[in-house]
Amino acid sequence: MLRGRSLHLSSLVYSKKPINIMSVTDQGFTIDDVRQAEQRIKGYATKTPVMTSHRMDAKAGRKVFFKCELFQRTGSFKFRGAVNFLSKLLEQSKDGPAPCVTTHSSGNFAQSLALASNLLGAKAYVVMPSIAPQCKQDAVKEYGAELILCTPTEQGRVAAKDKVVEEKGAVYAPSSQHHDIMAGQGTMFTEMFEQVDEKLDAIIAPVGGGGMLSGILVAAKTLQPGIKVIAAEPELANDCYQSFVAKKHIRQDHYPNTVADGLRISLGDVAWPIVRDLVDDVITVTEEEIKESTKLVWQCMKLCIEPSAGVGVAAVMSDKFKALSPDIKNVGVILCGGNIDIDSMKNWL
Amino acid sequence: MLRGRSLHLSSLVYSKKPINIMSVTDQGFTIDDVRQAEQRIKGYATKTPVMTSHRMDAKAGRKVFFKCELFQRTGSFKFRGAVNFLSKLLEQSKDGPAPCVTTHSSGNFAQSLALASNLLGAKAYVVMPSIAPQCKQDAVKEYGAELILCTPTEQGRVAAKDKVVEEKGAVYAPSSQHHDIMAGQGTMFTEMFEQVDEKLDAIIAPVGGGGMLSGILVAAKTLQPGIKVIAAEPELANDCYQSFVAKKHIRQDHYPNTVADGLRISLGDVAWPIVRDLVDDVITVTEEEIKESTKLVWQCMKLCIEPSAGVGVAAVMSDKFKALSPDIKNVGVILCGGNIDIDSMKNWL
Ligand SMILES: Cc1ncc(COP(=O)(O)O)c(C=O)c1O
Ligand SMILES: Cc1ncc(COP(=O)(O)O)c(C=O)c1O
Repeated sequence: MLRGRSLHLSSLVYSKKPINIMSVTDQGFTIDDVRQAEQRIKGYATKTPVMTSHRMDAKAGRKVFFKCELFQRTGSFKFRGAVNFLSKLLEQSKDGPAPCVTTHSSGNFAQSLALASNLLGAKAYVVMPSIAPQCKQDAVKEYGAELILCTPTEQGRVAAKDKVVEEKGAVYAPSSQHHDIMAGQGTMFTEMFEQVDEKLDAIIAPVGGGGMLSGILVAAKTLQPGIKVIAAEPELANDCYQSFVAKKHIRQDHYPNTVADGLRISLGDVAWPIVRDLVDDVITVTEEEIKESTKLVWQCMKLCIEPSAGVGVAAVMSDKFKALSPDIKNVGVILCGGNIDIDSMKNWL
Repeated sequence: MLRGRSLHLSSLVYSKKPINIMSVTDQGFTIDDVRQAEQRIKGYATKTPVMTSHRMDAKAGRKVFFKCELFQRTGSFKFRGAVNFLSKLLEQSKDGPAPCVTTHSSGNFAQSLALASNLLGAKAYVVMPSIAPQCKQDAVKEYGAELILCTPTEQGRVAAKDKVVEEKGAVYAPSSQHHDIMAGQGTMFTEMFEQVDEKLDAIIAPVGGGGMLSGILVAAKTLQPGIKVIAAEPELANDCYQSFVAKKHIRQDHYPNTVADGLRISLGDVAWPIVRDLVDDVITVTEEEIKESTKLVWQCMKLCIEPSAGVGVAAVMSDKFKALSPDIKNVGVILCGGNIDIDSMKNWL
């Protein structure tokens, strides 16, 4: 199963279109990692559908292809990365004792790692702040992971996670800052590339830590070098935009209170050089635009996306995107998740 | 295109499984009408997907196949019947002047008839109560129909509709009480029959006027005589249940205030004899069950169904359904629509 990092010609058989066999970035992470991830997640992750809508096309003024990752197992794309990370870990340690894993997350990655561990037969410890909603705590336990509550601060989370690493010998699985996580997320693009007959001229992906964006950048820029890859970010959490403009990694100095809760974390150190090298643009959107776009998808497409996915939709509908060349005809948008918390949603409906 | 009412052997080529060529009811409405409807709606209506969910199966204790009619054009199955009705009308009058149509509806049928008329090139007049939500009025106009507001009473609606029939020579298109409407709705079952590899042991359809239920009954009982067809109804609007138990048509004597607004109307005169002859059972569900099931589908399946569709889900999750024989392994549930009004939804979330 495991092959080297450099791209093998055998990878070409997966693609119906010719692909560029050069590395698109020198960060040691290539399409080959994504191809391996494809093999590892097969049978575990759902090959999610791509959907289109006449009404959305009319509103965007282009043809929009929505990758419906809200239908992924556990309700977000995070499951792809979790399965790839864990499955590779299990391959690498198959001659030793079974490894266990841990992460700290109150969001989608916690559920994804919990279910991935359950399916692949590994033990998982998930650290969550004690104030995390009961339904999220329950979901992690339902999926079979051991839940460890911690004081609801960044230090509290790290300390609890470090304790598990030390006492249980658990391997830390980061939610986005690891090439194996990114490679898993990159499979969203390789799937889309096969699913959409039209040539995609651009693709829009929301950015938080940047794991999804990095995976998509490497896959997209290899398979279709001319494609524009655009990051979508809440204005309230615009560290990726600031870094892009400044051409250096600018860290967020506050915890942003955007309704797009999956995008509150800062762009990470592993993602930054990939984003810096490859991303074409970053579009920021207001809270109002995020809420409007989220509701628009509920009403026009009948898809229960969460606000983090609404950020990508807001970007394709934005004046900035509309001002781009009409040569950009076919646009992919990643609907990255559908885990809405109805109680907190009521506050902004 | 048009063939006689009795079942032709040529209809058999549409089916991969042998079908019963007897009429299942003597109401003059057969699978042949449904097969003709299939041909008429092709290229206009969406062949909606069937979806499954591990979590929903676990909760129901059986394998559940959801027919995702929320993805139908205009957001509900009503579009199938509207296209079939209008397209047949146009075939029949192709040597005379182009017919125009009218209906009174504040709900899904109004939008469906408006879009069907637009696509097929006929003029439509839609009568709506003056208090109908602005968004619904706008949708009908956006689809290209002429909107006629009336006083918000049953008499007001009928009077306004009669006036259009008289003055414009419009043909009245009823939302459910016509075999051509029912035949269109029956295509949901013929599609499912092809889409689901497992043999369906039962199918659950919500009932309002009974157009959907009648179409499904005739299609299902012909193609798979042993299948159980079960109607799902809000307890607050249980006239179908009462008629089923009394074995005679009992009309609702009040306008029921159920959250499932598509199911407020009474079982109609054209539907009743078909339902009487063929339905296996009627399951009623409480408002609480409808709301819970609707939210469950949003959260577990990420599908924005409207409460009328939640009624079918509540039925498959009900104690009454759970008590049925374990031989009923595979159950179809029609998710009939996804047109939620966010403002009124906020009141019951
Ligand atoms: C739904 C959703 N979208 C987007 C993101 C951001 O992903 P990344 O951190 O890889 O940028 C997350 C992260 O939790 C998420 O849950
Ligand atoms: C979403 C939805 N479900 C069910 C129904 C009931 O259909 P019927 O009147 O054919 O029983 C309607 C009718 O408007 C509807 O809009």
